[in-house]
Amino acid sequence: MPERSFLAEMLQRIAGRGGRKSSKKPADLCSELLGDKGEVSGLVTAMNILDAYEAMTPDQKTLFFQDIAAGFSVDDKALEFAIAGWTPGNDAAAREIHMAAEPKSQELIRRLNRVPGATARLVNMRADLLVALMENPGLNGLNIDFQHLFRSWFNLGFLEMRRMNWSTQADILEKIIAYEAVHEITGWDDLRQRVATPDRRLFAFFHPAMPSDPLIFVEVALTTGVPGAIGPILAKNRKSVDPHSARTAVFYSISNCQSGLRGISFGNFLIKQVVTDLEHEFPSLRQFVTLSPVPGLRRWISDMASDRTADLPPPLAKAVQDAKSTGKIPDEADLRELTARYLLLARRSGNTALDSVAHFHLGNGATLHQINIGADSSPRGIENSWGVMVNYLYDGGSIEANHQAYATEQKIAAAADIRVLAGLPKRP
Amino acid sequence: MPERSFLAEMLQRIAGRGGRKSSKKPADLCSELLGDKGEVSGLVTAMNILDAYEAMTPDQKTLFFQDIAAGFSVDDKALEFAIAGWTPGNDAAAREIHMAAEPKSQELIRRLNRVPGATARLVNMRADLLVALMENPGLNGLNIDFQHLFRSWFNLGFLEMRRMNWSTQADILEKIIAYEAVHEITGWDDLRQRVATPDRRLFAFFHPAMPSDPLIFVEVALTTGVPGAIGPILAKNRKSVDPHSARTAVFYSISNCQSGLRGISFGNFLIKQVVTDLEHEFPSLRQFVTLSPVPGLRRWISDMASDRTADLPPPLAKAVQDAKSTGKIPDEADLRELTARYLLLARRSGNTALDSVAHFHLGNGATLHQINIGADSSPRGIENSWGVMVNYLYDGGSIEANHQAYATEQKIAAAADIRVLAGLPKRP
Amino acid sequence: MPERSFLAEMLQRIAGRGGRKSSKKPADLCSELLGDKGEVSGLVTAMNILDAYEAMTPDQKTLFFQDIAAGFSVDDKALEFAIAGWTPGNDAAAREIHMAAEPKSQELIRRLNRVPGATARLVNMRADLLVALMENPGLNGLNIDFQHLFRSWFNLGFLEMRRMNWSTQADILEKIIAYEAVHEITGWDDLRQRVATPDRRLFAFFHPAMPSDPLIFVEVALTTGVPGAIGPILAKNRKSVDPHSARTAVFYSISNCQSGLRGISFGNFLIKQVVTDLEHEFPSLRQFVTLSPVPGLRRWISDMASDRTADLPPPLAKAVQDAKSTGKIPDEADLRELTARYLLLARRSGNTALDSVAHFHLGNGATLHQINIGADSSPRGIENSWGVMVNYLYDGGSIEANHQAYATEQKIAAAADIRVLAGLPKRP
Amino acid sequence: MPERSFLAEMLQRIAGRGGRKSSKKPADLCSELLGDKGEVSGLVTAMNILDAYEAMTPDQKTLFFQDIAAGFSVDDKALEFAIAGWTPGNDAAAREIHMAAEPKSQELIRRLNRVPGATARLVNMRADLLVALMENPGLNGLNIDFQHLFRSWFNLGFLEMRRMNWSTQADILEKIIAYEAVHEITGWDDLRQRVATPDRRLFAFFHPAMPSDPLIFVEVALTTGVPGAIGPILAKNRKSVDPHSARTAVFYSISNCQSGLRGISFGNFLIKQVVTDLEHEFPSLRQFVTLSPVPGLRRWISDMASDRTADLPPPLAKAVQDAKSTGKIPDEADLRELTARYLLLARRSGNTALDSVAHFHLGNGATLHQINIGADSSPRGIENSWGVMVNYLYDGGSIEANHQAYATEQKIAAAADIRVLAGLPKRP
Repeated sequence: MPERSFLAEMLQRIAGRGGRKSSKKPADLCSELLGDKGEVSGLVTAMNILDAYEAMTPDQKTLFFQDIAAGFSVDDKALEFAIAGWTPGNDAAAREIHMAAEPKSQELIRRLNRVPGATARLVNMRADLLVALMENPGLNGLNIDFQHLFRSWFNLGFLEMRRMNWSTQADILEKIIAYEAVHEITGWDDLRQRVATPDRRLFAFFHPAMPSDPLIFVEVALTTGVPGAIGPILAKNRKSVDPHSARTAVFYSISNCQSGLRGISFGNFLIKQVVTDLEHEFPSLRQFVTLSPVPGLRRWISDMASDRTADLPPPLAKAVQDAKSTGKIPDEADLRELTARYLLLARRSGNTALDSVAHFHLGNGATLHQINIGADSSPRGIENSWGVMVNYLYDGGSIEANHQAYATEQKIAAAADIRVLAGLPKRP
Repeated sequence: MPERSFLAEMLQRIAGRGGRKSSKKPADLCSELLGDKGEVSGLVTAMNILDAYEAMTPDQKTLFFQDIAAGFSVDDKALEFAIAGWTPGNDAAAREIHMAAEPKSQELIRRLNRVPGATARLVNMRADLLVALMENPGLNGLNIDFQHLFRSWFNLGFLEMRRMNWSTQADILEKIIAYEAVHEITGWDDLRQRVATPDRRLFAFFHPAMPSDPLIFVEVALTTGVPGAIGPILAKNRKSVDPHSARTAVFYSISNCQSGLRGISFGNFLIKQVVTDLEHEFPSLRQFVTLSPVPGLRRWISDMASDRTADLPPPLAKAVQDAKSTGKIPDEADLRELTARYLLLARRSGNTALDSVAHFHLGNGATLHQINIGADSSPRGIENSWGVMVNYLYDGGSIEANHQAYATEQKIAAAADIRVLAGLPKRP
Repeated sequence: MPERSFLAEMLQRIAGRGGRKSSKKPADLCSELLGDKGEVSGLVTAMNILDAYEAMTPDQKTLFFQDIAAGFSVDDKALEFAIAGWTPGNDAAAREIHMAAEPKSQELIRRLNRVPGATARLVNMRADLLVALMENPGLNGLNIDFQHLFRSWFNLGFLEMRRMNWSTQADILEKIIAYEAVHEITGWDDLRQRVATPDRRLFAFFHPAMPSDPLIFVEVALTTGVPGAIGPILAKNRKSVDPHSARTAVFYSISNCQSGLRGISFGNFLIKQVVTDLEHEFPSLRQFVTLSPVPGLRRWISDMASDRTADLPPPLAKAVQDAKSTGKIPDEADLRELTARYLLLARRSGNTALDSVAHFHLGNGATLHQINIGADSSPRGIENSWGVMVNYLYDGGSIEANHQAYATEQKIAAAADIRVLAGLPKRP
Repeated sequence: MPERSFLAEMLQRIAGRGGRKSSKKPADLCSELLGDKGEVSGLVTAMNILDAYEAMTPDQKTLFFQDIAAGFSVDDKALEFAIAGWTPGNDAAAREIHMAAEPKSQELIRRLNRVPGATARLVNMRADLLVALMENPGLNGLNIDFQHLFRSWFNLGFLEMRRMNWSTQADILEKIIAYEAVHEITGWDDLRQRVATPDRRLFAFFHPAMPSDPLIFVEVALTTGVPGAIGPILAKNRKSVDPHSARTAVFYSISNCQSGLRGISFGNFLIKQVVTDLEHEFPSLRQFVTLSPVPGLRRWISDMASDRTADLPPPLAKAVQDAKSTGKIPDEADLRELTARYLLLARRSGNTALDSVAHFHLGNGATLHQINIGADSSPRGIENSWGVMVNYLYDGGSIEANHQAYATEQKIAAAADIRVLAGLPKRP
């Protein structure tokens, strides 16, 4: 989009001429921006706000957010007036309320976004805001505004899926290295293993306003059978499989790249689009599975209250007790059974699965397919789950029914043997 | 964005499998879509709604809009509840009101937009809605919803300016031919004159989700002086000027392409970005002017009440009287004076300029620069303004002050001789 | 390739500075160019030669070619010297002869080609040369030089096949309209019929140094059966076939675009690459045929000497006689039989098929498949062949054997019924 | 060029079907290829030859080259016949000789090049050939054939210059790292310093048939003054200069990437095109210099015969003697004087500069500008020249005169102080 740079240049020049850059307080500039009627001068103001913001320290940023939250909230008088004009059934008046109740901060963010390249900068701004929010719950309203707008702007219909490979531009690949959150990429050689060997794929979603910034990516291995461990998949000197004879596609890592987009979810669609893409390229594929961590297993056990332990079959209760008191790792059979119980029975309020990764895949309609002991010997793998990993199965024929059953009744789809391990009947 | 097509294909296949396409009423599908929690099945539903909609007759479309307006408005109970929880100063509660007062139709439109390629289809849907609205004022709420979302989605920061030329893709050029609204393009040869001769330029804005659909475009002629008529600019056999020796850039036509985007304005930014671009390419340029119609001149005269005529200097009053009674065209001097008075003095409620083209350019900060008699001999030119056209000047040094003066006090910037013609003092 | 323009600009500037452009005779500039040792100054000289050449009248061009042919031929002394140093078996000495016998005009053309964009200009130069050659056989050596270099530069490995459609750039589509040599394209609407309806395809070869200039293109119709006439294929209001249910792909027109590339053939490879491409896109296709003119049929009959007529079966001899004396069109059965005899039996010296189109397809390995009476009612179709057209079949299983048989023994592959019509045994 | 892959696929399939891949000897396949009349089957043969070749050991490759050299040389009988038909002045007959004397290996290479992607493979083949040639001088004829064709195919007019930066595809950047021959690039971080900091540039030439293979590249630093050492330019933590205020562009490294293209020179044009490009982007630039090694300085001294030493001024003669006998490094003044004498006075047969780097830049028209002692402390810098580097100046006003003077009379352009150091008069 080379032409756009001319606008950017124009802004620089106008800003330069007027020398406006220097003096005003950013929050005052924001007021000026909202007062402006959509003119070019407004773009200069917006650009100055973004520049000033990015030069701030974290503490200054927090103060800036607080200024915005305080000064650009809802206009109470206007809202009162709108409410007064409404009676149930009066749709036009309800829309007036809707507009009157819109915090001014939303329009402020929209206007900031007019500057070329602003979208990525606003995503970063929200990433900062999420940090500030932890200590300043009063910023939550502003956070909701960002989230509301981002949901609209990062609408699935605007996104583009691209395959990353060895002829992808270096700056994007460098970000992939940086953003991988599950199984660290150790450098360019490791990256090449993951994007440029015949039996590996890496797909990412992009937004057209941020063409060099991946939003989320998923890594895939094409294999013969369902893998029971992550080591062989990441091994440096592994032998590549001919992808045209592969029967299984394994999603072994999925990473969100933009913390500023928290709460706007793409992962479900990315996985399903990749499934469609791979089915098209490799008609020989028969099954699509993940190889996923079980991040909350050990914490579930260590947090387990004594009375809950009593619910377990006595040998398991003993294994849990030992683990809690002496740190003894449960033996393989116990560990397998504990994992089955954790994933199928441990629930949050609302009855959804306690394990966050399980919740994501089950919510997508996947089936808990296989438990793998000793599957991840990395420090994190050991620390979180004594090395246990599991496979979730994405099966076209059952995805929708599973999704509905989980969404409405929190029923978890799982292989019969895992159900039995968890003490459930073989079939639901 | 080739990858995206796989998603489209997946949707087709899923839709095909389930055979859902046929039976349900579109408005019921809309309910289903809103009930869905962001799953792939929701995409299929959305696609079915769009397909069903596009197969409707105009009357069916109006009924569909009425169903949506009735069935997807604000939830009164939720709104009452939210209002009950609010007291002035309670920002969080105000945000609750904002959300409760959001008509469900907004979320419906957002979900429809998830389908690949949906944005252009929704723009067309609103174009239909605007037609239906003329006879069904009850649809205005729904229209406001579309406008609100489009303002957010077609944010300037997402747009891309591209120059059209003879190596532009044929389908886009064909749309340029179709959309030119001011000075008709008579075919491919005429188009080539306007995009592929050295002293002509045509620039358009695009949105990345509609990469083959121009949103608005402006046509530019590079000339030596300020042109006083449109004929020589459009003449088939005119001699091309060396653009590097041109001193003037003339915006001689600006056309909106998408009636579904009414109320979302890009023209101001497009003109200013083109100015920046041309200044960069041709440092020899000294002035940027329009060659614009005066669409409301004759109607202003023919609508002029007798008592208003009395305010005019007697010779002018006579000319107006003659025009109204016998159709006699005012002579050149009178016409020039009438035009000056029309553009500078004739106002709408709110005191803005009565002439729509004048209002657009004055609002952008341009100056009324020159009146040209006999400048447009086309039937429409004669019918609207007896062939009068004017130039508005875009002068970097005064644009912002002009814009402010017009926006806040409705002061119109005009050349001294035109002010005098209108009976005003030479300087404001 | 935007960067390249900088070189072009540099050349302009250097040429501008030195003001060399004006004075020297082009043939003298050519001597200067050959004397130069590959420097930037040589590029300026080359550019000046090309510019001067293109400003010449046809007569001046002929004189220029004669100057080059005379002044840049083989260096006789050097050749004599090289010959003197050679004895059979001395390869190094033979290579010396090869180099000594290379006409200087070859190196001249290579050096002209260094200028950015020169390749297309040299192709045009040869097009002129071929015209001049008709009256000046002495230019044949120079023509051979061009052909030799073009064969090397337009090597198949350098070419790129692209599908033309409605999002192809307008300047290329305009050339397609201009170059169609078989069935005229009457304008942009007709073109759209041929490139942008679901059951039509148009493919072209390009060379990377001439990215906007198609070299050759072929037009394809996807149909259910083998078509027996061209009219329905070109009809404006025909109903489109769903290409995914088509069984037959018909090559109904193939046009060379660059007369300057005469003698460098791509058509064979283009057809076969298109076959591969279509097989890939539409697995339902079962056969690939042409719908081809029979350009030499009537001329063969009118040129037929009386004694040859005697060889024909009496009824046919009578039909020929009538056609020659009274212009009476043979009736359908006779015409069919005459066509069969013409295509299978009429030969050139070397025993290849007399008909040029037949020679092309048979040489490619195709089979004469079907004769269609009344298939082309255009003036040219009537004039050349009383409206007869034929289908050649490209059948993967027999292409190579057919090609070999035709290339080595001039055996023509034809359907059994056509063989019988021509008085041959049913099977060869 | 995605379409091309269909041809590649077709070849694979045809090759697969016929199972021809296995049995025949590559040299026999070559005979078959030459016998073929340009058919698709010839493409399969060519592909099989390339595949078979690439699977060979170095010794097998040498044998293959010997087979080709022996079996595809000039046809002696045809040549004798052609010679017999010639008399001086008979241009047509001379062309017959030219063709008869063309070794069959040339046509063989042209036909191999028809396979998609073959050009890069043939460049690699010649790289192997150049290695084999060192021990097998009999292969020189074949080497000349490759060089002749590559000169034609890699004609400047076909090349494209591209700037490499951090959004260049990773596979190309990886090759840049591998090919840098002067100042090693230690990894991706070092590379980013050289391509993606504001005051650094890297430009490369590409051929369209090898779009991911750079042919040659040059690295540029934008600086304030003429640099006297390489260290600060490569330093990891250097501070970047604002390129718009830079006055000097320094070519500090130029690397050929394809050993198979030895003898086809692009460097001169690349440097001059980069000069033009940078002048355009940065109008503030005032001078273009290199920072170049002096690779032959120490060898010149160590090879210096005693009697030559006698020609030197006595203190220098002593310094040389000490260096040769005890390895003592000459002191700074002596080293400077020795460098001046080496570069200006040491000549090859033909009187060109003995130093290869000097020969390259002087031949391009550059001026020896400055001698820098202690400029390169790398092991190679010390080993070749005790750390001495020099600057050559590319000055638009004198390039052509310098080039002519060096090309015709071997006059070396040098700064007055360097001339004096070498014992020459201040002005030539």
